[in-house]
Amino acid sequence: MMADPRFFKVEGPFSLNQLSEITGCRIEGAGKRDTFYDLNTLSSATDKEVSFLDNTLYIEEFRKTKAGAVLITPKMVERAPKNTFLLVLDNPYQGYAKLSQAFYPSVFGPTQNSIQDHPINSAAKIGINVRIDHGAVIGANSIVGDHSIIGANSYIGAGVEIGQNSIIGSNVTVNYCIMGKNNIIHPGVRIGQDGFGFAPGKPYHVKVNQLGRVIIGDYVEIGANTTIDRGALADTLIGNGTKIDNLVHISHNVKIGKGCFITAQNGFAGSAEIGDFVSFGGQAGIAGHVSIGDGVKVAAQSGVTKDIAPGKTVAGFPAQDMREF
Amino acid sequence: MMADPRFFKVEGPFSLNQLSEITGCRIEGAGKRDTFYDLNTLSSATDKEVSFLDNTLYIEEFRKTKAGAVLITPKMVERAPKNTFLLVLDNPYQGYAKLSQAFYPSVFGPTQNSIQDHPINSAAKIGINVRIDHGAVIGANSIVGDHSIIGANSYIGAGVEIGQNSIIGSNVTVNYCIMGKNNIIHPGVRIGQDGFGFAPGKPYHVKVNQLGRVIIGDYVEIGANTTIDRGALADTLIGNGTKIDNLVHISHNVKIGKGCFITAQNGFAGSAEIGDFVSFGGQAGIAGHVSIGDGVKVAAQSGVTKDIAPGKTVAGFPAQDMREF
Amino acid sequence: MMADPRFFKVEGPFSLNQLSEITGCRIEGAGKRDTFYDLNTLSSATDKEVSFLDNTLYIEEFRKTKAGAVLITPKMVERAPKNTFLLVLDNPYQGYAKLSQAFYPSVFGPTQNSIQDHPINSAAKIGINVRIDHGAVIGANSIVGDHSIIGANSYIGAGVEIGQNSIIGSNVTVNYCIMGKNNIIHPGVRIGQDGFGFAPGKPYHVKVNQLGRVIIGDYVEIGANTTIDRGALADTLIGNGTKIDNLVHISHNVKIGKGCFITAQNGFAGSAEIGDFVSFGGQAGIAGHVSIGDGVKVAAQSGVTKDIAPGKTVAGFPAQDMREF
Repeated sequence: MMADPRFFKVEGPFSLNQLSEITGCRIEGAGKRDTFYDLNTLSSATDKEVSFLDNTLYIEEFRKTKAGAVLITPKMVERAPKNTFLLVLDNPYQGYAKLSQAFYPSVFGPTQNSIQDHPINSAAKIGINVRIDHGAVIGANSIVGDHSIIGANSYIGAGVEIGQNSIIGSNVTVNYCIMGKNNIIHPGVRIGQDGFGFAPGKPYHVKVNQLGRVIIGDYVEIGANTTIDRGALADTLIGNGTKIDNLVHISHNVKIGKGCFITAQNGFAGSAEIGDFVSFGGQAGIAGHVSIGDGVKVAAQSGVTKDIAPGKTVAGFPAQDMREF
Repeated sequence: MMADPRFFKVEGPFSLNQLSEITGCRIEGAGKRDTFYDLNTLSSATDKEVSFLDNTLYIEEFRKTKAGAVLITPKMVERAPKNTFLLVLDNPYQGYAKLSQAFYPSVFGPTQNSIQDHPINSAAKIGINVRIDHGAVIGANSIVGDHSIIGANSYIGAGVEIGQNSIIGSNVTVNYCIMGKNNIIHPGVRIGQDGFGFAPGKPYHVKVNQLGRVIIGDYVEIGANTTIDRGALADTLIGNGTKIDNLVHISHNVKIGKGCFITAQNGFAGSAEIGDFVSFGGQAGIAGHVSIGDGVKVAAQSGVTKDIAPGKTVAGFPAQDMREF
Repeated sequence: MMADPRFFKVEGPFSLNQLSEITGCRIEGAGKRDTFYDLNTLSSATDKEVSFLDNTLYIEEFRKTKAGAVLITPKMVERAPKNTFLLVLDNPYQGYAKLSQAFYPSVFGPTQNSIQDHPINSAAKIGINVRIDHGAVIGANSIVGDHSIIGANSYIGAGVEIGQNSIIGSNVTVNYCIMGKNNIIHPGVRIGQDGFGFAPGKPYHVKVNQLGRVIIGDYVEIGANTTIDRGALADTLIGNGTKIDNLVHISHNVKIGKGCFITAQNGFAGSAEIGDFVSFGGQAGIAGHVSIGDGVKVAAQSGVTKDIAPGKTVAGFPAQDMREF
């Protein structure tokens, strides 16, 4: 199962015909089974799971995939592996978006005509010497470690884990997050909300349910009003000892290593990968899917559009070696 | 009446002499009546209303205005239409700022020595199957549609309307807003606060009361900690199906069309007009009063300083055609 | 005493040997006493206090310091003044970080196993005709002036002072702040959280306790989701009549004069000093320690990296005179 059951409840299974009805695909190829239990990436999926190919960067993963069925465009049929069903349609990502809603229809939880009266759910596990300030709301099956503080009017969603000695400021929101110990989360931080994932279309873009989490290590500090989205499939990761300033945006699936310094108003687009002990001046932007090596220094207001080798110092837009800039 | 009475209570009427006392203007010209009930734009005002001319872009509207009185500079007297009173002063916008405070003195509501005990006002209308999480506060005469969710510790101001099947995350603030159905508003979003409007002066700038609203369509998604200010006179508009990422700033009077993608940390200055299905890379800035046509693509970190024709792809500062850039 | 006792409780005193144990320094020189009560800057410290030299810009202050002991690198020993103990180590700023934690261990307050039930602390002083909306939490020894409003679900920390006729929006956090009268603080603003101060190191950077405050004048307006960090040693200052838009970031120790206009998404790095009546277009960035003179105009998306003389108009990155740009 791909999505963490502490946060996401999977529905199904679905038959091949149901997949076709939901996505509008035609079926080709020959897989092993007609019952599909979940979604997964090309490289991790089993024959009980459905995957998709939307970007030719992942053709190798497609050729080797063990997925039971794969959403693809007509052009990809001839490059398909054997032993998998091909769910052929013009827009595989939109098909995936629809399946993400079918397998996980209840991301936002049930609606019921009720007013929640009990700010700390009886199924939450609260450690010893924990301070919970007035108005903080703590959801079911969440865990707050010993000696931690939850600030006034903050919201800790169902299933969230907060390690020992961590400080959550006031007016903070944490959802879909597993967090280590000795962290400081400043007021107004938003962790774990939906990443910005849509399959474009008309008249309406189709929402891609975001099924990952935010995993935060130890000794991390996150500045006021910073936002960290949860992953779409993989998790969003923040490594041990990384310090993040105010009003920073971290998109879904971003991976940030250990000991980084990320100053205010930086923005990281989806799936960017940042090494250890990388530092960023203010207001820089990092494009999606780029990789930044260990020890890199990125100057303020830079725009990083391609991979940066370890140890470099870069500046400007597009960001280049400081000596050339 | 210009300002929506669900949100704003107009005072008055005011006589010509009162207008002169409030603004420090001298009176010229010859209008039809000495009683003024409201403020309005040059093109919409009736002879019971007061308007102002502060920008020579609007001279044509001035010549044709039906307003009963108009705040203008001495230079504009000779270009004035007949049948209107001229309220002549050096700084008409500062005069307007003072009148906005005189006609609408109670934008922030009365202060009284009280602690609000009832989080859901008895005059709010709550639909069926609505979920309201702990600590959410819902003001008088607001409407929450069927099957909607109001997250923990959020604040829905007086008069606000939220359509069916909408999800308001935790720690959200919504004021002066009319919102359709099937919307998702993520944690920490701020909708409907004052636009940034001041008539510059010394020793203190004069606040211009912000008398518009925020109008949001259907199937809109707004990312965490994004801010959307209400209009100064006209409304701020967000069209159907537009998706907005985290930490975006949308100023007063901005109009955004349908199906747009606005990624994180974009900023839209006042009165910018964006067409349908426009997409923005991260951290771009759009200057005030510019117009961007349908289907335009704006690259990340661009600065759009002038109008962009439909279908163009632009980049850089100032933003220009991608091929030239 | 350097840190405001309304917010910070100083521990100690510490002997010279204790200072050496905490920081790992060796002791040279000859001061007057072996008992140290507090930390302070080189220019303000007395012989009962400890200071540090980490930046050669401050060598003159070092030569004239009255501090009882100073953390320095080995290279600085020969330039030291007489009559002070020298606390010699390779990384004086990391030594200072550790001492900031030793002298002020309880910045976040004691943790105790409790749920706060009383949103308005009995030791808060609430003026007449004050409106406190539902869910607002007000800490001990704070002062709310007459005719002020505290919005729903906001948090006013211990010791904070809010002057008369001030409006605090909903979901706001205010800590370590002294604020004058007639201010408007919009929803989601964060005032007074820790500045971004760390002494870099491996495996973990060392947190520098932030011991200053945020001092805000009168007639100030602060836009939605803006963040203003408190000072590290000195205070962060916002002058009378300054208007700040949404999503602005103001770092620790920044000093902003009177009557400034700061539009959305600007970022001010630590210790920047801004004169009176300075205006900033959107999304500009101001580097640390730069000084901007009275009446300067900074264009949108500029990056100010060095001092700007009064009255100039600047644009671009690095920001330069508009006529050259």
